[in-house]
Order: sequence, then C-alpha cells, then structure tokens
Amino acid sequence: MDEQKPRILDTRLVAQSRLFGIEEMHLRFSNGEERTYERLCTPPLAGVMCVPMLDQDTVLLIREYGAGVEEYLLTLPKGAYEHGEDWREAANRELKEEAGHGARKLTFLKRMSLSPGYMGHHIGVVLAEELYEESLPGDEPEPLEVVPWKLSELDRLIERDDVTEARVIAALYMTQRILDQRHS
Amino acid sequence: MDEQKPRILDTRLVAQSRLFGIEEMHLRFSNGEERTYERLCTPPLAGVMCVPMLDQDTVLLIREYGAGVEEYLLTLPKGAYEHGEDWREAANRELKEEAGHGARKLTFLKRMSLSPGYMGHHIGVVLAEELYEESLPGDEPEPLEVVPWKLSELDRLIERDDVTEARVIAALYMTQRILDQRHS
Repeated sequence: MDEQKPRILDTRLVAQSRLFGIEEMHLRFSNGEERTYERLCTPPLAGVMCVPMLDQDTVLLIREYGAGVEEYLLTLPKGAYEHGEDWREAANRELKEEAGHGARKLTFLKRMSLSPGYMGHHIGVVLAEELYEESLPGDEPEPLEVVPWKLSELDRLIERDDVTEARVIAALYMTQRILDQRHS
Repeated sequence: MDEQKPRILDTRLVAQSRLFGIEEMHLRFSNGEERTYERLCTPPLAGVMCVPMLDQDTVLLIREYGAGVEEYLLTLPKGAYEHGEDWREAANRELKEEAGHGARKLTFLKRMSLSPGYMGHHIGVVLAEELYEESLPGDEPEPLEVVPWKLSELDRLIERDDVTEARVIAALYMTQRILDQRHS
C-alpha cells in the first residue's frame, strides 16, 4: 500500500484521429527503472452503465451491435457523460434512450476500469430500480431490442456467446449479490 | 437472434503510433442507416488472464502499476499471446512471470471483451489450480507484489478503491461461483 508511484517525466500526444488520442508517457519507477508507455487518452474517459431491474429478479438487457468485435451482443444501457451531468442524470438519460425506461431509485455500485495499463477510462455502475416507461431519442442507428432476463438464471446468460463484455458480467454478478443480501 | 449484421462498406487506418492503430469503418445497418465509426485495431487483440487458486479459497492477486489510470491496482496475472502459444501455454507463462507459480490444472472459463463498441480486444479467463512454485523473468519494470486473498471475502475486496478492473471483478465472481457449485 505504500508504494511510491512512478514519476511521469514527460507526456506527449503521438497520434490522433477524430475520436481517439494516443499519448506517449515516459516513466521512472521508484527503483530507477525507466519505461516509455503509450496510453489512450480519448474517447471520453468517464461514463455510466445501468443495471435496470424491472422487478426483484428481472434485468433489462439490450441487444446492440459492437463495431469493434463485429457482432451483436447482449449488454446494458451505457454512455458517456454529457455537458455537466451528474451520474444520476447520465444514468437516467441513457436508460431512457436505450431501454425506454426511467428509474426512481438509483444506487451507485462501483467505479470500474477497463484496461488500466493503457486506458484511463472508467465507468460507473449504477443499479436502477422502481422503473417507469419513458423514452428519449438517442443517437443509435437502429432501435435497440430490449431483452428481459432473470438474474436467477445468470449462469445460463453468462455461458452465451453473445454475452462477453467483462463490465456487464461484473455488474450483473454485483447486482445479484446485493439483491441476495438485501433479501437474506 | 436473427439480426442481419451491418455491412462494412469500407475500412481504413486513420492514425497509428508505435503501439496503437485506429481504423475508421463505414457501416450500413440493415435498415439502411449509415454510420462512420472508429475502433482501436491494436495492441494485440487477444490475451489470457489467470485466476490462480493456491488452495480452495485463496486466490493470488498481483499489485501492478496501471499507466492508463496512474494508480497501483490489485489485479490478476495476464498478457498477450506470444509467437504461436495456445491459451494453456500463454496462461502458464504469464502466471510464472507475474506470480511466481505454474499450474498443473488449467480450465478455460470465458472469453471476455472490453469495450466492444470501439475495441476488438478479447481476453480468455483461465482458472489455474494445483499450483507449484516456478518463476520466469518477465518484462516488468519492477517485481510485482503477490497478494493472497480469500474468495470467501470477495465482497470486501471489491469494495476496495484499488480493485477496479471489470474483467478482474468478473473473473473472480465466476471463479467463486464455479468453486461453490463444485462443492455443493
């Protein structure tokens, strides 16, 4: 716990596209070793992901195309923060845009990272309960299919080939654990 | 399940650094909508991550600096495939390099994605059991601290601020579930 963090001697932008920026960083570790690393510095470094519970056992998943993997996947509503939103506002907006529901009760579960070695990105996982129907137009190229699933059949969900996203799997296990504890 | 995948009309490399490549892709969805997306096409798109169990309840975590988030985090041994390795060889090599152990029993649990909207990356999660002490030199700038943790105290681990990686959280929950089922 008392490690001394590496000293960042230098950083510079080495490549950039419309969406992404890549930064080179020159580090000196506390033992004197020096390394040059690269990391992604955009797209937006912070977002939120909702676990929308329709009832005590039913989560609303969405089916969405992932251009990175070239597959349709079952995932959870998520997106980046927009202009000054707090996590509650962003979570509720994404939920309305992608799953056609708002939530009266929102609980922040965990701030998760993706690949902390070369990405600064974090996503806040939010449990959304006491849902009501309300839609907002999003920027999706096609309407997203909403797929209800029972958390009591979570193992069967995670076996599926169209469920691969680590943050989705982590969020669903966390939610199951929290709901179990609440009712025990 | 019968969605027609978007047609990839065109792809081209729009930015590149030593480590990363960024590809622009022009897509036409089945409803006729067209979009231009960007995605990361390197670093290596496939890797493995081990969940090393020292005994039925003790997992070996490692403490490693994440340059992307500029923090030391508790994580699991992982890395990219090297020259023709299969998942067993890669998992055992990473385990020896990063946690000072080999494993006689390796079980493939799940192929996970990170951010499938703009990354093609996948990591194979491997349960490693029947461990023995053996080290291989890695390319780490400093020796990694190995931190044993009880899976029976997984909730307390996940509450920690230095445990954030979604794939690590997902892998530990999956492992706990599998070991619980094995002994019930």
